Amino acid sequence: MMIKAGIIGGAGYTGGELIRLLINHPQVDIVFIHSRSNAGKLVTDVHTDLIGDTDLIFADTISQDIDVLFLCLGHGESTRFLQETPIDLSVKIIDLANDFRLVKDRNQPSLNRTFIYGLPELNREAIKTAQNIANPGCFATTIQMGLLPLASTGILKEIYTTGITGSTGAGQKLAATSHFSWRANNIQAYKTLTHQHLGEIGESLDQLQPGTEINLSFVPWRGDFTRGIFVSSTITTDLSLEELYRIFEDFYKGHPFTSVSRAPIFLKQVVNTNKAVVQLEKVGTKLVVHSAADNLLKGACGQAVQNMNLMFGLDERTGLNLKPIAF
Amino acid sequence: MMIKAGIIGGAGYTGGELIRLLINHPQVDIVFIHSRSNAGKLVTDVHTDLIGDTDLIFADTISQDIDVLFLCLGHGESTRFLQETPIDLSVKIIDLANDFRLVKDRNQPSLNRTFIYGLPELNREAIKTAQNIANPGCFATTIQMGLLPLASTGILKEIYTTGITGSTGAGQKLAATSHFSWRANNIQAYKTLTHQHLGEIGESLDQLQPGTEINLSFVPWRGDFTRGIFVSSTITTDLSLEELYRIFEDFYKGHPFTSVSRAPIFLKQVVNTNKAVVQLEKVGTKLVVHSAADNLLKGACGQAVQNMNLMFGLDERTGLNLKPIAF
Amino acid sequence: MMIKAGIIGGAGYTGGELIRLLINHPQVDIVFIHSRSNAGKLVTDVHTDLIGDTDLIFADTISQDIDVLFLCLGHGESTRFLQETPIDLSVKIIDLANDFRLVKDRNQPSLNRTFIYGLPELNREAIKTAQNIANPGCFATTIQMGLLPLASTGILKEIYTTGITGSTGAGQKLAATSHFSWRANNIQAYKTLTHQHLGEIGESLDQLQPGTEINLSFVPWRGDFTRGIFVSSTITTDLSLEELYRIFEDFYKGHPFTSVSRAPIFLKQVVNTNKAVVQLEKVGTKLVVHSAADNLLKGACGQAVQNMNLMFGLDERTGLNLKPIAF
Amino acid sequence: MMIKAGIIGGAGYTGGELIRLLINHPQVDIVFIHSRSNAGKLVTDVHTDLIGDTDLIFADTISQDIDVLFLCLGHGESTRFLQETPIDLSVKIIDLANDFRLVKDRNQPSLNRTFIYGLPELNREAIKTAQNIANPGCFATTIQMGLLPLASTGILKEIYTTGITGSTGAGQKLAATSHFSWRANNIQAYKTLTHQHLGEIGESLDQLQPGTEINLSFVPWRGDFTRGIFVSSTITTDLSLEELYRIFEDFYKGHPFTSVSRAPIFLKQVVNTNKAVVQLEKVGTKLVVHSAADNLLKGACGQAVQNMNLMFGLDERTGLNLKPIAF
Repeated sequence: MMIKAGIIGGAGYTGGELIRLLINHPQVDIVFIHSRSNAGKLVTDVHTDLIGDTDLIFADTISQDIDVLFLCLGHGESTRFLQETPIDLSVKIIDLANDFRLVKDRNQPSLNRTFIYGLPELNREAIKTAQNIANPGCFATTIQMGLLPLASTGILKEIYTTGITGSTGAGQKLAATSHFSWRANNIQAYKTLTHQHLGEIGESLDQLQPGTEINLSFVPWRGDFTRGIFVSSTITTDLSLEELYRIFEDFYKGHPFTSVSRAPIFLKQVVNTNKAVVQLEKVGTKLVVHSAADNLLKGACGQAVQNMNLMFGLDERTGLNLKPIAF
Repeated sequence: MMIKAGIIGGAGYTGGELIRLLINHPQVDIVFIHSRSNAGKLVTDVHTDLIGDTDLIFADTISQDIDVLFLCLGHGESTRFLQETPIDLSVKIIDLANDFRLVKDRNQPSLNRTFIYGLPELNREAIKTAQNIANPGCFATTIQMGLLPLASTGILKEIYTTGITGSTGAGQKLAATSHFSWRANNIQAYKTLTHQHLGEIGESLDQLQPGTEINLSFVPWRGDFTRGIFVSSTITTDLSLEELYRIFEDFYKGHPFTSVSRAPIFLKQVVNTNKAVVQLEKVGTKLVVHSAADNLLKGACGQAVQNMNLMFGLDERTGLNLKPIAF
Repeated sequence: MMIKAGIIGGAGYTGGELIRLLINHPQVDIVFIHSRSNAGKLVTDVHTDLIGDTDLIFADTISQDIDVLFLCLGHGESTRFLQETPIDLSVKIIDLANDFRLVKDRNQPSLNRTFIYGLPELNREAIKTAQNIANPGCFATTIQMGLLPLASTGILKEIYTTGITGSTGAGQKLAATSHFSWRANNIQAYKTLTHQHLGEIGESLDQLQPGTEINLSFVPWRGDFTRGIFVSSTITTDLSLEELYRIFEDFYKGHPFTSVSRAPIFLKQVVNTNKAVVQLEKVGTKLVVHSAADNLLKGACGQAVQNMNLMFGLDERTGLNLKPIAF
Repeated sequence: MMIKAGIIGGAGYTGGELIRLLINHPQVDIVFIHSRSNAGKLVTDVHTDLIGDTDLIFADTISQDIDVLFLCLGHGESTRFLQETPIDLSVKIIDLANDFRLVKDRNQPSLNRTFIYGLPELNREAIKTAQNIANPGCFATTIQMGLLPLASTGILKEIYTTGITGSTGAGQKLAATSHFSWRANNIQAYKTLTHQHLGEIGESLDQLQPGTEINLSFVPWRGDFTRGIFVSSTITTDLSLEELYRIFEDFYKGHPFTSVSRAPIFLKQVVNTNKAVVQLEKVGTKLVVHSAADNLLKGACGQAVQNMNLMFGLDERTGLNLKPIAF
């Protein structure tokens, strides 16, 4: 069986990364890649790194003869797109924006669609039977990898998290903070304590540890690299390091993309892969959980393909055995 | 059919990169990965980016029940290894060092082995029937991609080439010039006009354009990035740009990994892929050929796997449809 | 008046940076630069960026005809040096290692010397009359810039701090984590909750806010840049942002090198300067203080010169009006 | 004597760098910094790295009570500015754009001004008495440092040059090639054989070696760093390396900012300084000259201040003893 896939918004960063994955996916046929601004152009004219890999051309029309549609649009644009463009209800939808991630947005009667929050480590069974997926955010994914096992144990209360992200997290639009001359060798905090992913993280923690007011103070930093997110979260707990490691190892058992490491982790371990890594350290009653993932893969397009695999009954890893960049 | 493969020197940069490729190669079983210094350790203890991808353990013994043996040793060490360690003549050998690249070194009566210079764009037919391969150098590969079509036309005489290489080209040993504090944001020339790859390049040019004294002045630079080689070569010719583009396009027709681009190329187009890209520019009688490749893949391990594919009758691209890093 | 200065350990990172400052200081004569391993060599043979700037030669002898001696040795080596090498008590000493920073180490009867902790924003008056200075650590300086005004108000209790440092903070010795191929585009935590600067920070906080048990959970990260430290510290307080800004502005009034910014700060604002910048953000009861400084200047050699200026009655800024790198 | 200086175009990269130099210049008073788009704002609102260093405010008016006016405008805008804004002929002008660099543009009867090409190593005596200076380009300066001594010997004929430049060379405007996600870890050629600095270089070579047709094939590359230019030029000559070194050392004797190095040079030797370094290597009849400079300093603003110093009878180095970034 080949899955027939369409892509909306194929010219952006997530669109391009999704194409890079799907052209090598053994069970996917790309039916169309829609891009209003690039219709008629070769995909390789825009994603020039794909030279020699594909002859696909950007389309300005949408075929309904597909099994799954990926929405790679700006935040808020997915809703408008689906309202303006009727998509057969038989077509599964995977939305990479933040339109349908929050509980209040998951049921969309006007669209006749209900979305499942597509984090396999949290919702794998529901994803397998889902018709529509709200794909998690990149910081949200990486932070949750470090916190979900703790929530499942019911011990979360005050969490202090700092995270650093590569420039691709901010998309391809030009901005003062994306200028090479500024960003090279630089660090800056942004959206301190107000990052837009706090909502979806909070809801996932509440799903596993209901009834507790959990307070997450999150300070995101802009990093001077292009890919990846590294996060350290600190909490207070009386559990021993060994007990905590067992909780994490149990939680992620059977999840092929998330590894619990007893050796020091680092960002480049996961760059260009769909993997996440987690490491624990404890001094006194303070526990620090480090976690890392590639923002464009496990934090976006890789996870979208992982969700697609689950929805269509494939092995979760199909098409996602990616060679790490390593260096 | 599964190809049974062994790897000697699995702890270094090329050893690691080869493992990254072979664990995902659909027609290879890794029988052993030999590393004297790491025998008994998990491969993931050394190549930590492979966490979650493999349970392999470094071996200190060598099995003869293999179809192909990759030598990932330091330059000069392959000869000594083969002298000290009898390998069944039925086992094909692919050497990634520079021991057998030059014409004078290709025939090794004492080893009872003859090596073919493993550059598929130059020697594909010979590689298909080869028993032993001398895998080309990284700068040698990238420079030749820009020059071979010109040599095939017989117009080379004086060539001026500058190239820049990532830090992985120098291996994992610690040195003042590999210290982050020094290399970050830095550029330096090294081995000016005396780089060790000049010999193999010269012999390839002579193979295609025999009887001409071709003079290649090559200035290599250390770059402040980890992966990839970018090269610009300047020659004098009366051929038009269009004629030259046709020569290049004809030469690389049917070679899946080398693309001739009429748009400006750049280094990251090919990073984390087995591809090479080439672009031409001409003003007056001066032709500049730009070429780029990933030094660890098309310049080393990717090309080694490409050679293995050819030697075993597989599609050249098997296991080499790698997702570009893009950013 | 010219201050006659000697330097011990002139070949390392801090030795070199101190030389870069002192050769342009209008009121300093460098009498000798001692380096056991480089005696007789030109300073420019080691610190090659000083080409054209100085003819000084490394010495293997020490003159007592100096006013001040800078110790740029490894941690723990300053004590041994002073024990083995009698230095006239008339010579002021500025130690850049961590030998004399803690209260328990400041009084050294066997050396007949007492050290003052050389953080001008904390101890300026004491520094002016000090005979010996223990120069603060780089992380210690940057973190304290963000916390001292809060301690002076008596509101500190639980502090959660994450900081990122450039590679020069780890010195010039070669190590796996200082290899360019590893560190480029990478992030890693190290010494989680156990960094050696916690002691001196804690003592300074106690000096301003005695009698409170203050708990500082500090997660340091290795950054993929060479110079600078960026820190975010989170606490809980009911004071308003405006009240807090006034506290900071009052605290640093008259301190020329530390600026309180109401605009977002970033690391490169201070690189290649002796400045520190501090910014506050508040949501609910959570306050985040960002602070940044150059680890080799305000975090080491610049502060050492600032201390020297104060000790000799000069304007604090003499020789320290450095051009920011800006980009 | 204090020199009264005005700056036109103070908000751009060269404007900012010039301010960084002039606020610390011991013999300059900045009378105004003109910026149409930022009039009324603090200079530190735009050049935020100057926080704590200056209280200057951008002006929208121009005072004639100045001794020297620096034009930091886009190429072509200097002419228009001077046509529209009458500047007293008693005011000396230093133009950092390319408007008056070429012989045909140096004499401007309509402006009643004649410009001298402001490269001190070529024209120091003329600069001392000049009323108006055309400040050289950054690549032009760095390439000429490597070629002028050869031209003075009359041996130039065919030159092959490759150079790499930091991102600040392209100014602060946002462009696809200045996006961090693209430029990080990347290399690309641009303006191959057609760079706009070829004209001024050619005229300088002709000034020293008149009557020869000298052919310079120049391939510029975009580098993945922010500051600096590194260049390698290859020529053919029978002179020995020792003879060549003597020619270079004689040529630059008495020029404080250009050093001839017999040790390998590298880019970061000169970053954040007004210095240039040059190194020679020779194999057979091929000579390679490496040269490096900071594009914003010796390649722009530092050289502008050097020219000002010469025009006003000051020591050439006044205000230009800059601490190298080193790392």
